[in-house]
Amino acid sequence: MVIEEVYKYLSGKKNRLSYAIPKKWVAPWFSGRKKEYENMIIVDPYEYYSTILEKILKGAREYVDYSESYAKIHGIENPNWIRTAHVYAMFIRTTLSYNHKGFGRFEEVDIFGYRESGTFLKAIGFLPYLKMLGVDAIYLLPVSKYSDLFKKGEIGSPYAVKDPLKIDDRYHDPILEDFSVEEEFKAFVEAAHIMGFRVLLDFIPRTTARDSDLILEHPDWFYWIDIEELSDFTPPRVPGLGFKVPSEEDLEYIYSLEDVRKHLKKFRKNPKEMNPQKWENFVKNVNKSNFLSELVKEFGVITAPGFSDWINDPQPTWDDVTFLRLFLDHPKASKKFVDEDLPPYVLFDVIKASLFPGERENESLWRYISSIIPYYQKEFGIDGVRLDMGHALPGKLEKMIMNKAREIDPAFVFIAEELDISRAKHSKEAGYDTIIGNSWWMMPRIPGKAYEFYQVIAPEMELPYLASSETPDTPRIKAREYGDKLKKLIPFLMAFAPNGVLFTNSGQEIGEVQPLNLGLDNTDEGKTVLPPSDEFYAKLGFFDHYAFHWNEIDEEVFSFLRTLSMVRGMYIDLITEGEYRPVWLDWQDGKTANASYWGNGRAVIIVANLDTHPRSVKIHLQNTKGGEIKIERMRVWREKGWEKMENSNEWVKIFMEDFGFALVEILFKEV
Amino acid sequence: MVIEEVYKYLSGKKNRLSYAIPKKWVAPWFSGRKKEYENMIIVDPYEYYSTILEKILKGAREYVDYSESYAKIHGIENPNWIRTAHVYAMFIRTTLSYNHKGFGRFEEVDIFGYRESGTFLKAIGFLPYLKMLGVDAIYLLPVSKYSDLFKKGEIGSPYAVKDPLKIDDRYHDPILEDFSVEEEFKAFVEAAHIMGFRVLLDFIPRTTARDSDLILEHPDWFYWIDIEELSDFTPPRVPGLGFKVPSEEDLEYIYSLEDVRKHLKKFRKNPKEMNPQKWENFVKNVNKSNFLSELVKEFGVITAPGFSDWINDPQPTWDDVTFLRLFLDHPKASKKFVDEDLPPYVLFDVIKASLFPGERENESLWRYISSIIPYYQKEFGIDGVRLDMGHALPGKLEKMIMNKAREIDPAFVFIAEELDISRAKHSKEAGYDTIIGNSWWMMPRIPGKAYEFYQVIAPEMELPYLASSETPDTPRIKAREYGDKLKKLIPFLMAFAPNGVLFTNSGQEIGEVQPLNLGLDNTDEGKTVLPPSDEFYAKLGFFDHYAFHWNEIDEEVFSFLRTLSMVRGMYIDLITEGEYRPVWLDWQDGKTANASYWGNGRAVIIVANLDTHPRSVKIHLQNTKGGEIKIERMRVWREKGWEKMENSNEWVKIFMEDFGFALVEILFKEV
Repeated sequence: MVIEEVYKYLSGKKNRLSYAIPKKWVAPWFSGRKKEYENMIIVDPYEYYSTILEKILKGAREYVDYSESYAKIHGIENPNWIRTAHVYAMFIRTTLSYNHKGFGRFEEVDIFGYRESGTFLKAIGFLPYLKMLGVDAIYLLPVSKYSDLFKKGEIGSPYAVKDPLKIDDRYHDPILEDFSVEEEFKAFVEAAHIMGFRVLLDFIPRTTARDSDLILEHPDWFYWIDIEELSDFTPPRVPGLGFKVPSEEDLEYIYSLEDVRKHLKKFRKNPKEMNPQKWENFVKNVNKSNFLSELVKEFGVITAPGFSDWINDPQPTWDDVTFLRLFLDHPKASKKFVDEDLPPYVLFDVIKASLFPGERENESLWRYISSIIPYYQKEFGIDGVRLDMGHALPGKLEKMIMNKAREIDPAFVFIAEELDISRAKHSKEAGYDTIIGNSWWMMPRIPGKAYEFYQVIAPEMELPYLASSETPDTPRIKAREYGDKLKKLIPFLMAFAPNGVLFTNSGQEIGEVQPLNLGLDNTDEGKTVLPPSDEFYAKLGFFDHYAFHWNEIDEEVFSFLRTLSMVRGMYIDLITEGEYRPVWLDWQDGKTANASYWGNGRAVIIVANLDTHPRSVKIHLQNTKGGEIKIERMRVWREKGWEKMENSNEWVKIFMEDFGFALVEILFKEV
Repeated sequence: MVIEEVYKYLSGKKNRLSYAIPKKWVAPWFSGRKKEYENMIIVDPYEYYSTILEKILKGAREYVDYSESYAKIHGIENPNWIRTAHVYAMFIRTTLSYNHKGFGRFEEVDIFGYRESGTFLKAIGFLPYLKMLGVDAIYLLPVSKYSDLFKKGEIGSPYAVKDPLKIDDRYHDPILEDFSVEEEFKAFVEAAHIMGFRVLLDFIPRTTARDSDLILEHPDWFYWIDIEELSDFTPPRVPGLGFKVPSEEDLEYIYSLEDVRKHLKKFRKNPKEMNPQKWENFVKNVNKSNFLSELVKEFGVITAPGFSDWINDPQPTWDDVTFLRLFLDHPKASKKFVDEDLPPYVLFDVIKASLFPGERENESLWRYISSIIPYYQKEFGIDGVRLDMGHALPGKLEKMIMNKAREIDPAFVFIAEELDISRAKHSKEAGYDTIIGNSWWMMPRIPGKAYEFYQVIAPEMELPYLASSETPDTPRIKAREYGDKLKKLIPFLMAFAPNGVLFTNSGQEIGEVQPLNLGLDNTDEGKTVLPPSDEFYAKLGFFDHYAFHWNEIDEEVFSFLRTLSMVRGMYIDLITEGEYRPVWLDWQDGKTANASYWGNGRAVIIVANLDTHPRSVKIHLQNTKGGEIKIERMRVWREKGWEKMENSNEWVKIFMEDFGFALVEILFKEV
């Protein structure tokens, strides 16, 4: 395995104590040389990482290839494992950013040659921390080679993928000198599998970077516009239709508009079609690592900027991405409105290919797209993916992607980028195992939406959803109103949510307040939550270098979430396989969220106070169970720990502080 | 001249209309091809710049070498010209940053190969704009090669100079392909001189970047610390002395402190002295463009971070700069407290070399430092400089710098980085022509400090000061309280201030609110004055890419400052050579700022209302003049323009809006 080679390499080298890391990253069993300074530990990086790798390797069984998927290693054959998982969503570049020189400001690579932005080596070193946190599935935001062209901040977004089959070299750790970033990723997945983690990746089949490396080989997979149309390119406006996804009846009107006709005229044939001979020479001679600028100069065209498939979306163009050309002809439903010879163009219908397919599939492209995940399965043994904008893909392509992956690993998990909970059933039918859902939106809206979600929506979900307090796209739970309470209350509820897959957003566990992105439920003000003196004030991890505040973490949150994860672990069988029952209370004003799960002589009851005042509730046990039982033992868990309770066969009284909560464990016999 | 070659090069080339520039930059006489889009003009850059250069070259006289200083060209022999100057302070990187592709966000170099950050070519194109604004002296913030090491933002600060004898290559414009940045700077100065501008530069003799290019040749010119002391290196604390520059009596106490003894132990011999043979090999083999990282690895030492010469200064260390070693021994006054063999160290006394010189001058370094300005004089014909931290230099070195420059050009101007107006006399004696002063601090403090400055301090100044409403280090005048009024009132007062050198801070004239730096009179909140949706929210030009809001400028400010500059021009002889007299008013409550200047039959009177309410004032003409006169003609100028006035030999009544102002022009005869 690669991880063994990495270990060998590291254990043969020595350095000064010159590599600062946060105290929190250091496993308690690390006994190498170190120097403490405030909340940093200064170590020799070779000694530090080799000690961790040694420890990890000790946990590996002989003759097992940990670069296979977790399911293969353990003979698991279906994707139900996601139901019990505790998913940790991590953008390695950000989560593992740290000022390793220990003074001054963050730098991408520092004077000692240490990479201060995240790397896979650091991610391996981070596994003991994740273990301690009770995580068992690591969902990585895209790790593929990304572009810096038309970037939205200091550095490129991971969603502007330049080559989906390459891993971005900026995740390479200079400490590992001659290892390739692919080897390092492999070592990371191996280490994760050894330690009992699954690894999921984020994939983006619908778009690429504007300067995608695929262009040189397949200019016909892209949409092109005249370069002189670039500076004022915007989606055409469609007066009168409001803000919506177009339906078939809208097409005639849309295509009749002057603004749309103008828009369509901006598109051009691809440069190869324009002049095949010139293109051949161009491809032969151009500098492959920076070709788009030359292409623009030579051919006067550029890939079209992306934009939303919603009509009249106020979002600006997505300058850093372009759509892939999924069909070789115009959308079937739109053909009657446009000239067949019009160069391939991007419009709302074209984008929403799931609703408006063409007739001639771009087969070579579909084969390519559906081969990406299998590459990561075979090469690295990943265990699942989230599909970005999967819902905009033609159903057939979506299916193709899934089938190919599941042929290799039937336990492979697909998470749908589907926020709309009413479409859970649709996602299930499409073959997904989980949707993202909107708990991150409903739950912080205390008490009304939170109650509705917990009591009405969640129990009825036809597909599991990510039970999240926040996501990489949303505000941080701690930065919400009442954040200092919600930072514990919502994770508590999510840990025991009906049909939920527990989801922790990296940084949440240490009380980070700065979001990584303003994509969902946020405004521009949302990036100003840190004090202006903070080095990372107004920076967003998706677009800028950003390091979490590892030197001043919220220990209260950390230790709570750690304990919570353990407590949840004790009942995970009940939550996923027990009988869900709403809790029968003496009164209910829509401010006591609750759930109960009943198994064989064992039950767990959850109650939480969604109000700004303390409250007492009385739980009727018999009615909650919905059948006659005799209580044998009861105890209650709150933030402060376990307490014994007196047995009672009827009513249990629970006191809760404002935004407080409690869990009641019950051993019983059916009568 | 180089400018002719640049012109020839540009006029031979053609491109698409693909280079967006702000409408405001385009001279009204530009008649080339163009396309308008909102507040941008899209041009062919070759055509655009060659048209401007052609026009400029038409203004050049034959046989004149415009790469000589303005004074030499025009036979001027003393530096008094600064008295009448209108200085425009410009950080080229920022002032001339613009998104030339016209869409998306700013990029350092864009897809068309256009450099979006400032260049000398753009600075040439900017000269007609500056002419229109009535500027006649351009003070450029440092243009020397700067470092990116330990930077405070996205990009390096211009004050972290890597090589004072090189111009930073990031000012090269790719449009000029094979021209060197030195040639481009030369072309800029030539163009400026042809158009009647002087050019002043900013010089930093006391510090260099931590990875100065000088290190390889002169490691003995630097202070070195052990690399293991780097992560927690801070200036030692000196309990009980408060916040002050140390005096000689403090030294014994300072050196007795445990914290200071520990501090001194962090220093090391320079790497050459440590091991001359190893050093020789190192210098021979290392990659010159990135040597410090290797040096650290090989020798275990690094140049010491800079810090303030004030004891107990709350500022953190200046991580991006290091001090030059001006003396080969310890400060004379401190010798009795330290071991002679202690490696060269940095402490408050060492920094403040003007007060605490050593006995053995570092002659080779002094020769080097004093040769820098002459290089820029001979090579480019610059007309003056601002000396950064000149006051911390030993007097002899300061003198040496000035003498060498004035041998070459007796009209060469030195501006002292001296904010303390009480030290004007000292600066004068040291040979400076102007100090920076503190009008930017006093004047916005309306009415009290403003009145004090205008009526009491300014008239008594023994050396001219920069009459500024704001500077590159301070908050913007428009961002101050009452900024929408002060943005006109303070420039008005400054334009006619006694002993003032009118100073416009680039961006001020278009109503920019974001400061370039938080160095003076600001807090961290001061960087949050733009709306969070702004692309450059919280960015500071000194440390980040920043472009002014050229597409949405404050036209009211612009046209006012332009007119003001013209009006001032009509009276500049009176202001600088006429008799200054405070204005005799019917009543004075400290809220009517005023000044008058009397010449031969001509006078100008300035009054300004420092109050939040309108007011009328009556001016007693005879008493103001201080001698009997007969008025021949009077007119008044206000923001709205000129008005006639009825003659009166006694009282003139002037009405002013809140924060309003007026200028009265008088033609008279002495009786």
